[in-house]
Amino acid sequence: MFEFELVATDGAARAGAWRLPHGTVETPCFMPVGTQGTVKALAPSDLETSGAQIVLGNTYHLNLRPGADLVAKFGGLNRFMAWPKPILTDSGGFQVFSLEGIRKITEEGVTFRSHIDGSEHFLSPERAVEIQWALAPDVAMAFDHVIPGGSGRGAVQDALERTQRWLERCRDRHEGLGRQAAGGSGLEAAGGRRQTLVPIIKGGTFTNLRRAALRDILDTGDWHAIAVGGLSVGEPKEEMRAVLEDLQSVLPGGLPRYLMGVGFPADIVASIGLGMDLADCVAPTRMGRHGTAFTDDGQVNIPAARWREDESPLDEGCDCEACRTFSRGYLRHLFAAGELLGVRMLSLHNVRYLIRLAGRARAAIVAGTFAAWSRDWLRRYTSREPE
Amino acid sequence: MFEFELVATDGAARAGAWRLPHGTVETPCFMPVGTQGTVKALAPSDLETSGAQIVLGNTYHLNLRPGADLVAKFGGLNRFMAWPKPILTDSGGFQVFSLEGIRKITEEGVTFRSHIDGSEHFLSPERAVEIQWALAPDVAMAFDHVIPGGSGRGAVQDALERTQRWLERCRDRHEGLGRQAAGGSGLEAAGGRRQTLVPIIKGGTFTNLRRAALRDILDTGDWHAIAVGGLSVGEPKEEMRAVLEDLQSVLPGGLPRYLMGVGFPADIVASIGLGMDLADCVAPTRMGRHGTAFTDDGQVNIPAARWREDESPLDEGCDCEACRTFSRGYLRHLFAAGELLGVRMLSLHNVRYLIRLAGRARAAIVAGTFAAWSRDWLRRYTSREPE
Repeated sequence: MFEFELVATDGAARAGAWRLPHGTVETPCFMPVGTQGTVKALAPSDLETSGAQIVLGNTYHLNLRPGADLVAKFGGLNRFMAWPKPILTDSGGFQVFSLEGIRKITEEGVTFRSHIDGSEHFLSPERAVEIQWALAPDVAMAFDHVIPGGSGRGAVQDALERTQRWLERCRDRHEGLGRQAAGGSGLEAAGGRRQTLVPIIKGGTFTNLRRAALRDILDTGDWHAIAVGGLSVGEPKEEMRAVLEDLQSVLPGGLPRYLMGVGFPADIVASIGLGMDLADCVAPTRMGRHGTAFTDDGQVNIPAARWREDESPLDEGCDCEACRTFSRGYLRHLFAAGELLGVRMLSLHNVRYLIRLAGRARAAIVAGTFAAWSRDWLRRYTSREPE
Repeated sequence: MFEFELVATDGAARAGAWRLPHGTVETPCFMPVGTQGTVKALAPSDLETSGAQIVLGNTYHLNLRPGADLVAKFGGLNRFMAWPKPILTDSGGFQVFSLEGIRKITEEGVTFRSHIDGSEHFLSPERAVEIQWALAPDVAMAFDHVIPGGSGRGAVQDALERTQRWLERCRDRHEGLGRQAAGGSGLEAAGGRRQTLVPIIKGGTFTNLRRAALRDILDTGDWHAIAVGGLSVGEPKEEMRAVLEDLQSVLPGGLPRYLMGVGFPADIVASIGLGMDLADCVAPTRMGRHGTAFTDDGQVNIPAARWREDESPLDEGCDCEACRTFSRGYLRHLFAAGELLGVRMLSLHNVRYLIRLAGRARAAIVAGTFAAWSRDWLRRYTSREPE
């Protein structure tokens, strides 16, 4: 379990298969985000027909509402949200550190107030692991110290070192819970409660800090995957590219690599070219709610008046329900009239677009044509003037 | 085409089949309402799996947005909203007469201001027929003079007489459009543009006015269906019952009978028992948006805290996606968290519930057990204290 099989490589790009308790995830793979136990506007049946292999849940949100204990009573997040395939939960770090003004950070953890009702809560490496154990996803993330993008070297190094100390605490608590569940015989044997904990490489845009972080992580445990965090937070694209290019040569080849929070089409394709295997982002559903659709010809702003009489589908090449069923003119009407079906259809399309994009990248890698495919895709994607 | 076959009767209750250009509608039948060219929160695929046989569109709303001309450019409302089965449109009368303060009524028609942008519009018998011709549903409704529920006899009689004069104008315009489309050979021959116009019996709660209205209607044309309007507008249930009971004996047996705007479960079952064949209402989707579900045990208010830990489905006996997939506790979480999936699932369930309710009534009529079935259903539906 949790083994990663490398099926093919093409340059730095990799096609793989990651075996998880609730199913095997073929990589490269885009993971839709279900913040509050639902990928916004989509049902599990929509995710299934979209080809989703794994979805994300947010520890911060789920712990506040409905509460990790309640989810556990329902038998875990898979059963609660009726999603039978793998789930990955984040640790809540990203959310609590963004609660500027209503959170206090110490070495022990973060005390914060709920954005919902102002009640006081505490999140620490141990609590983040315990909550994720209760939510029971296949993949849990380590609790990291998140700092604003663009922070200086000193701040980045401090956060990185704390993240490393917290990683040891996450590991210890996770191993303890695994032993408890298995009656002392170790995590892997814990029947239906098998879960892997994934560490996060921090270090901002400082490549040598990133390398040091990776060394520390590899010294700290026997991991099944490694995440790259703290990118896609406002830094120039070339800097993200430089970090990934540098990490490529030192990341263990046998572990899947998860690039956190990256979800725009061009970034996904670029990251795959730089050896990343998994990506997630709220972009497809958030953009969909505002009427923006991803297509091979770039973004399309459906509420715009220019689509009023347009009888063509959103995206000729797409097989999603929105593209198979409706015209741009009708979708535009739904947004003009404030109808929920519009939000749902564009969310569905965008999720399907990114999942299909990762699938097309995978096929190109297997065929050994990734460089040409990604160049052609990017040329077409960026060829039209933005609306 | 437009023939109504009476399959079985059981007391006053009828099981029938109404042949329309886009499909045959088995009655009794509940028709979901798609005000703006979409049944709120539902896709055509949802309507299909819900067993919807026919949906409603609103002339008033569609004419303001996106405009009847635009819908016609897309080939009519069926193609615009991607719904291949029958559609019935109302005439806009109900909406424009409710625009108190921003509408002026004359014998010619109604001048009114749009609720969207304040622009001035005009609706008359001829315009209502022309707009519905452009929308191209199988079934169009006559433009009637709507007055508030509870109006006195004088006002009811005046409105009824105007509705009768307007019916003649509707009929003439409809016949003219049919001849035009068929090159002079009559409506029925107009290829893909076959449409039937349905008159509306008015008369408030005055049974003799209702009878007089029916006589006038039958003298005015050769109709394929008859609607009963101006009920379910706040009058006591017994008065609605008395009107339907009285009409029962004089309504032509060979035409389907459409009771307008009735859509709560107990009213639908009662109206079927009084010989009605078709009903429509926004109730299932509107109630669903607010978290109220119809079940055989009465209404359930899903956002209530009592369902927080409930692992049972919304409605044991239901086969809709919400009931097959989710627990009450999860649906409650979706409403507490403001997630669109909750709105969609309860809308879907309520629509399916009413469609299935009409189907169960039909099966009982065919089996000759309608009286017992409806008594048992009502006893259970009303046995629990409302929440």
